[in-house]
Amino acid sequence: MAKPKHAARKAATSKPTVRKSKAPLKNAFYAQSGGVTAVINASACGVIETARKHKNKIGRIYAGRNGIIGALTEDLIDTSKESNSMIAALRHTPSGAFGSCRYKLKSLEENRREYERLIEVFKAHNIGYFFYNGGGDSADTCYKISQLSQQMGYPIQAIHIPKTVDNDLPITDTCPGFGSVAKYIAVSTREATLDVASMAKTSTKVFVIEVMGRHAGWIAAAGALASSKGCELPIVILFPEVSFDEAKFLAKVDGAVKKFGYCTVVVSEGVKGPDGKFLADQGLKDAFGHAQLGGVAPVIAGLIRAKLGLKFHWAVADYLQRAARHIASKTDVEQAYAMGKAAVELAIKGHNSVMPTVVRKSNKPYKWAVGVAPLEKVANVEKMMPADFISADGFDITAKGRAYLEPLIKGEDYPPYKDGMPQYVRLKNTAVKKKLKDEFKV
Amino acid sequence: MAKPKHAARKAATSKPTVRKSKAPLKNAFYAQSGGVTAVINASACGVIETARKHKNKIGRIYAGRNGIIGALTEDLIDTSKESNSMIAALRHTPSGAFGSCRYKLKSLEENRREYERLIEVFKAHNIGYFFYNGGGDSADTCYKISQLSQQMGYPIQAIHIPKTVDNDLPITDTCPGFGSVAKYIAVSTREATLDVASMAKTSTKVFVIEVMGRHAGWIAAAGALASSKGCELPIVILFPEVSFDEAKFLAKVDGAVKKFGYCTVVVSEGVKGPDGKFLADQGLKDAFGHAQLGGVAPVIAGLIRAKLGLKFHWAVADYLQRAARHIASKTDVEQAYAMGKAAVELAIKGHNSVMPTVVRKSNKPYKWAVGVAPLEKVANVEKMMPADFISADGFDITAKGRAYLEPLIKGEDYPPYKDGMPQYVRLKNTAVKKKLKDEFKV
Repeated sequence: MAKPKHAARKAATSKPTVRKSKAPLKNAFYAQSGGVTAVINASACGVIETARKHKNKIGRIYAGRNGIIGALTEDLIDTSKESNSMIAALRHTPSGAFGSCRYKLKSLEENRREYERLIEVFKAHNIGYFFYNGGGDSADTCYKISQLSQQMGYPIQAIHIPKTVDNDLPITDTCPGFGSVAKYIAVSTREATLDVASMAKTSTKVFVIEVMGRHAGWIAAAGALASSKGCELPIVILFPEVSFDEAKFLAKVDGAVKKFGYCTVVVSEGVKGPDGKFLADQGLKDAFGHAQLGGVAPVIAGLIRAKLGLKFHWAVADYLQRAARHIASKTDVEQAYAMGKAAVELAIKGHNSVMPTVVRKSNKPYKWAVGVAPLEKVANVEKMMPADFISADGFDITAKGRAYLEPLIKGEDYPPYKDGMPQYVRLKNTAVKKKLKDEFKV
Repeated sequence: MAKPKHAARKAATSKPTVRKSKAPLKNAFYAQSGGVTAVINASACGVIETARKHKNKIGRIYAGRNGIIGALTEDLIDTSKESNSMIAALRHTPSGAFGSCRYKLKSLEENRREYERLIEVFKAHNIGYFFYNGGGDSADTCYKISQLSQQMGYPIQAIHIPKTVDNDLPITDTCPGFGSVAKYIAVSTREATLDVASMAKTSTKVFVIEVMGRHAGWIAAAGALASSKGCELPIVILFPEVSFDEAKFLAKVDGAVKKFGYCTVVVSEGVKGPDGKFLADQGLKDAFGHAQLGGVAPVIAGLIRAKLGLKFHWAVADYLQRAARHIASKTDVEQAYAMGKAAVELAIKGHNSVMPTVVRKSNKPYKWAVGVAPLEKVANVEKMMPADFISADGFDITAKGRAYLEPLIKGEDYPPYKDGMPQYVRLKNTAVKKKLKDEFKV
């Protein structure tokens, strides 16, 4: 039976119950993880601004200096020392404002001590909310901390905030960071291809651009958006999902150059040969034990020169692509902020071990909403690009792929400029006084 | 003695004298030369819009398809087939709308036939104005055509319009195209350096970005603008003007990483070792006989790994930097347009064998005006970067260099976007009917 209206009105206007308990409010801890993006600080902005609006629910908001390492070493940053305007400016500042790290916690069996240490630090600083902003590895860490904290009798609400240019988290329609890289690659590829089109008569005929994407071709696929109705351009894509077939590739480039006079090749750093080896493998490994890549563009360019005798130029976008806040997607910035905001709202509502998600409602017009996913279904699941996003010949995207990608690059969200330069902020990052006696080496 | 006022008023309101002669108005020819830029089409826009405003002085405006090759092969484009709105859109469209070429005319002694052919084509199409939009080589061609046309009894007014990202034309304070590359490099270097700053604790400590600049370090110098008051960043620049000193360079990088935890190296493609050879020399040559460069970034990155053992990432901006209209400098766009406009105005005033220039009036506030330089003083003169723009240690710019560079990147001039992509135009480029019988092979 519905409550009478006057009762509802009374409830809505009644003052919040005064806390009987003297226990202080639980504090929050926020950390950035893995490779940073053009919009991860927009998520940080969403977290901090939302938490500041709920001072009756959340105490202080700490951040980890250099990500989870800051928690392990008890090197916490007191975000309350930053003004509202500095926090607001995070929304348009690329990189990781508190520092990030590539530091993967081992499994509970291998190094239980690390998880216990995290919980000790959280306990020492009365931290009840753990917001971890990262990709697949950090979703896994977040999930484990949530579980272990229960076992250790100091329950922490652990919320994962999606972030990765690789776009490979499951359940969420997209990952904040990806849309802006996609926009950068689409715009840059369009610009460079028009350049080559101008020069092809006597000079460069093939432009090769190397893009990120170790396992999945999401970013390479964005290169296809360089060509669209009214600006049709010959773009050849090399996806990591498609084993490199030299003869087929050379025939494709040769055909494009014969037809248009020029073409652009967008090559993913993760492209592998028929032997399963990365074309660009330098034999190096990063801190996660992943192969350190880079330099497939000159390999492809050299091949084009040797086998087709065509003049080429090549570029490697590398960090420029993921740091390019100046050409960020407005949609991406909004979603990054919304994920941070939703994480705090979920925590306040009592959720634990979850990740806010982007839920696509429709393509045209593009509509999305915030959803929620349990971390146990996110951790250690890598979302690959659907096979039906790649064209039959393996060098382009399908209409379905395009319908997925196009909304993600919509809108511009320019940072403020002064004297020609974007005004990105750098925080004070004031340290919180340590409370634990023992040091922890990472 | 001053004229009485009423006489002056009468003169101003009197109708223009009706042309007695039946000779049609002279037509104009415009061509783009060499590597294209983000703003060369803004100069084209300035030429065409200004000429359209003077229909009583200039007949049709033709453009060369693929630059001067279009003139040699009588492959002219009729720009009157393009609407005013399409011409206006050239202002925000990168690349060369009519096609450009790397085709250097030989000396008069070596190939007088080419110059004669140009004048034949101009004569056949009643072309009396030659607007050539390029760098040093095209200034030389422009100068020669002006001289030879006099000798051949078909005098042509030849006006050179400055354009080059290399910023190496004399007399003019700057060259359209440079300011936008400078802005792109300054902004991208700031963004990528903030990215590295976030990651340096556990991951990449040195980021290397390779920039254009074969002989002069103008573009590399722009990397220093990434660091400015309020956003101080450790940037190490390798100029082509400074012979590469491995030990000194490694000590510089090591010092920066020890002090800040990270640094960015901006390396010019034209950096040479003590033996005078390009560090990146691939042994290739372009159509002008210049060495084809690219790939010094991995050389520097490899050195940093081998000698300092630091984790690195590297990028090669290549065409992305000169095509990046999305982050063009507003100052540069305005100057590019002004140079095109001034070229037509100079022609109408009867000037010949000249180039409009940018004249700097003051730094703060930045003020500039349009000047004019005789082509004989422009042709074959390469302006190097002043030695006092480079810091004493050879890895930074001086305050004087900064004062010169800063105004050139001022202001943003965003292209219009639709569905997340910049709306760059592609013209119809309708061919003019040929009048000459003989074909000319280039």
